[in-house]
Amino acid sequence: MLIRTGIQVISGLSIMVLLLSACSNQRDETESKVSSELENAIHTVHAESAGSKVIEPHQGVNQKPSPIVLEREGTDVTIKMTAQITDIEIEEGYMYRAWTFNGEAPGPLVVVEEGDTIHFTLQNKDPAIPHSMDFHAVQTAPDKSFTNVAPNETGTFTYQATKPGVFMYHCGTAPMLAHIANGMHGVIIVQPTGGYPTDNEVDREYVIVQNEWYKYNDLEDMTNGEPSQVVFSAKALHKGQINTNGTVTAIKDSPLLAKPGERVRIYINNAGPNEVSSFHVVGAIFDDVYLDGNPNNHLEGLQTVMLPVSGGAIVEFIVKEEGVYPFVTHQMNHAAKGAVGYIRVNADWDDGGKISQGH
Amino acid sequence: MLIRTGIQVISGLSIMVLLLSACSNQRDETESKVSSELENAIHTVHAESAGSKVIEPHQGVNQKPSPIVLEREGTDVTIKMTAQITDIEIEEGYMYRAWTFNGEAPGPLVVVEEGDTIHFTLQNKDPAIPHSMDFHAVQTAPDKSFTNVAPNETGTFTYQATKPGVFMYHCGTAPMLAHIANGMHGVIIVQPTGGYPTDNEVDREYVIVQNEWYKYNDLEDMTNGEPSQVVFSAKALHKGQINTNGTVTAIKDSPLLAKPGERVRIYINNAGPNEVSSFHVVGAIFDDVYLDGNPNNHLEGLQTVMLPVSGGAIVEFIVKEEGVYPFVTHQMNHAAKGAVGYIRVNADWDDGGKISQGH
Amino acid sequence: MLIRTGIQVISGLSIMVLLLSACSNQRDETESKVSSELENAIHTVHAESAGSKVIEPHQGVNQKPSPIVLEREGTDVTIKMTAQITDIEIEEGYMYRAWTFNGEAPGPLVVVEEGDTIHFTLQNKDPAIPHSMDFHAVQTAPDKSFTNVAPNETGTFTYQATKPGVFMYHCGTAPMLAHIANGMHGVIIVQPTGGYPTDNEVDREYVIVQNEWYKYNDLEDMTNGEPSQVVFSAKALHKGQINTNGTVTAIKDSPLLAKPGERVRIYINNAGPNEVSSFHVVGAIFDDVYLDGNPNNHLEGLQTVMLPVSGGAIVEFIVKEEGVYPFVTHQMNHAAKGAVGYIRVNADWDDGGKISQGH
Repeated sequence: MLIRTGIQVISGLSIMVLLLSACSNQRDETESKVSSELENAIHTVHAESAGSKVIEPHQGVNQKPSPIVLEREGTDVTIKMTAQITDIEIEEGYMYRAWTFNGEAPGPLVVVEEGDTIHFTLQNKDPAIPHSMDFHAVQTAPDKSFTNVAPNETGTFTYQATKPGVFMYHCGTAPMLAHIANGMHGVIIVQPTGGYPTDNEVDREYVIVQNEWYKYNDLEDMTNGEPSQVVFSAKALHKGQINTNGTVTAIKDSPLLAKPGERVRIYINNAGPNEVSSFHVVGAIFDDVYLDGNPNNHLEGLQTVMLPVSGGAIVEFIVKEEGVYPFVTHQMNHAAKGAVGYIRVNADWDDGGKISQGH
Repeated sequence: MLIRTGIQVISGLSIMVLLLSACSNQRDETESKVSSELENAIHTVHAESAGSKVIEPHQGVNQKPSPIVLEREGTDVTIKMTAQITDIEIEEGYMYRAWTFNGEAPGPLVVVEEGDTIHFTLQNKDPAIPHSMDFHAVQTAPDKSFTNVAPNETGTFTYQATKPGVFMYHCGTAPMLAHIANGMHGVIIVQPTGGYPTDNEVDREYVIVQNEWYKYNDLEDMTNGEPSQVVFSAKALHKGQINTNGTVTAIKDSPLLAKPGERVRIYINNAGPNEVSSFHVVGAIFDDVYLDGNPNNHLEGLQTVMLPVSGGAIVEFIVKEEGVYPFVTHQMNHAAKGAVGYIRVNADWDDGGKISQGH
Repeated sequence: MLIRTGIQVISGLSIMVLLLSACSNQRDETESKVSSELENAIHTVHAESAGSKVIEPHQGVNQKPSPIVLEREGTDVTIKMTAQITDIEIEEGYMYRAWTFNGEAPGPLVVVEEGDTIHFTLQNKDPAIPHSMDFHAVQTAPDKSFTNVAPNETGTFTYQATKPGVFMYHCGTAPMLAHIANGMHGVIIVQPTGGYPTDNEVDREYVIVQNEWYKYNDLEDMTNGEPSQVVFSAKALHKGQINTNGTVTAIKDSPLLAKPGERVRIYINNAGPNEVSSFHVVGAIFDDVYLDGNPNNHLEGLQTVMLPVSGGAIVEFIVKEEGVYPFVTHQMNHAAKGAVGYIRVNADWDDGGKISQGH
């Protein structure tokens, strides 16, 4: 399993992040040539089973991950992302030719602040298929601001993020089920102007996405089948990621760690595309939960938080003592298909003083 | 797609409603004759697959929709509905011989006020099968007040609606799964005496029902299969519908519309029978959500609301600018099966001054 | 259907409990001999269908239910439970050789108080397979406190129950899906120090667990299939159960009863292992709901409460008049598979003065 991590200061707290289970294939391969021949290579494979249809327009395409660009000027945030086709290891040894944002699935984490105006550019590097971007964090006319960008073209859109939360983003191009199930989804966090009531108690933050995978690009299986894999990804805050003062932070390899007695905050979003989630951390109880990440949607003492598809939450909990704390969707058939992650709690782990700096 | 709409003043606000996807077949057909021969025609078809069983007692029966009757005297509300068998177009060109209330599936919208006493009469026009009515809005002994009404008979029941909300109603006759899946469900809204905290901010209201359909009257498919269609219906407030001052309002053809910058309120209920819903409006964020429609169950800033089967909610949101705003269950396999509706936002649309009247 | 019931005073209220649908086989059979031959008898049966695999290590093992031991000294509570293999009647006439706690599935109800320290001992009587205990009510390192206990061995663990709620417990041994689906789950209620705001209004309390069953010990069916049965159990507070003053209460056979006009409180937990629940009582509306049983997570006027897998709730409602009130998950395919229970409301029923004593 490949892991990549990043650290970024948000609200004065250290955020340690880890790509747990679904991360892009970063082997040194040159970007695939996008030529007209590729478009000719588009073909349709009909599976044996009646009604099952696999569309495979991306033979021979495996594009190197592109870094996301995020720049801030006052409350104006410029975000540049790509739609691209990149092989992703979704299970040990199983590469999936994913439809991605920036060569990752889930796509890169985006963090902005309540009230920010987002100037968003989507460069569609996919040689074959149009793509688009639907940020759940913005209020806008979808037929104007979430519109398709044709292959090899670029589209720019402007909208505002006026409400705090842990929002899903995804490709909104039809058939949307295929675009999301093939990997085009991620999380945009909008930080509340006034923060969360429990901000001062939090020692460590992670961002986790749940999603399920189906047979390769098989719309029939996506529509009527059972997931092949259900996975968590703890998304890296990638190089290029903005932080609250507009600077760019570094990436550092690091496990999903905490120290005994710390309060951990997880930003969780369930990308689906089909299955709801029963998110639970083994050995912990959520002291505080904010549904969809809104500071006013406060619940206490939950063992498990119910997430609709595309729904998010912030959960905060104490990891009381040294050890390993798995997190799961308690829908055990999905946990059995991979939806298990781990928090390692270790007093001796050196976090470079980030925790003390955080307070 | 047939559309029917209605307008009714509730709490001083205009309610625009539209039958989106599942509406009764109103072709000019005389009501089917209910004769003893029909009962003889009842037969049972065994499908080829082992364990799959289709019961089809309604060959040749297609009863013309009957209007619901609603009359108010003080806090006493008389409601008369029918159980009947009527062909419904559940998908373009696909007629389903539905088990219905009043020839619609979902059944007609019922709106009463907190504290009302309901005098309910069910006339069972189905020549073959008993039916009944379970209003989630009332507290009563089911074995006395939700009891079966035999074919060609009439039953009358009295109970009170003491709590505000967006409640499901459905036939409670066994096998209940078959009665609900075949179409016998709808929404009863109980308006709170004190209104909702956000009543004055709302410009426009709609009522939407989500439900799924299975293979025709196939109990095995209903029990273990995947839905064939998942659909939304924005229910008309039909002629005969009471409003807050007891008068009867007219029906008018109209699309599901709003104007830029308006706050739209949707009363949503998920009739199931089997699948939970992740209700979301593309391009919008729910400023305010009232779970099950109770004014005290207030959430804010949700991207998506989780609805159990039979659960409801009120969601309110701004449609910021001109354009088309789809709404979906974000369980994308269900959206792919039809659970997509649209709100068209247009500044030039003439609503006859209703909005300004509303304030 | 076998029924067993118990009565226990909690917070000054009478708790009437009933084992509704899944109860242990109490026929007079001597405990199976646990010999080395048994381990030799472990075998693996491959079902006919491709990919389907049944592991059956328990041929000939059917262990007599062992009573749970619960003893209190101040805030120190000693709990002794067994892991054991016992035939359970999960449907009329259908015996399931369940993996159980104490010979029951769901396992015995455990009730402690907020702040209690639990000294827990698991005696693994299963001759073939390790088991463990994961209490959702405690905060501890799972790799130290929820660890496996080998066949014929005993493990002891200590942890604290610091938050009130209606928590799931279950075996945490891999494959966890199999251990839970085979029966190793139950409820631990942690009573809040300050009680619930509505304690004084409650007349009667029940504890109900929802769970689903699959083909016998068939991990493939558990992972990708549909449940064979979905059931409710109203758990007995068994002999040996502690109450608030540390004494042991008696068991009495009794139906799930209430009197007209009473307010009934149900502690509900959804054990899964896979399916969420839409819990609803026919003919009633939940006046008050506490999500996961935390007094601060208060909702009002719900028709149906959404439960994630492993999630719980307290629901309170009036049974207005004499009659029979079914409760269901409103996911009707699951209700059709057995998830229906009944409350009988009868003014003449003699409860031995418990109600008046309760106030």
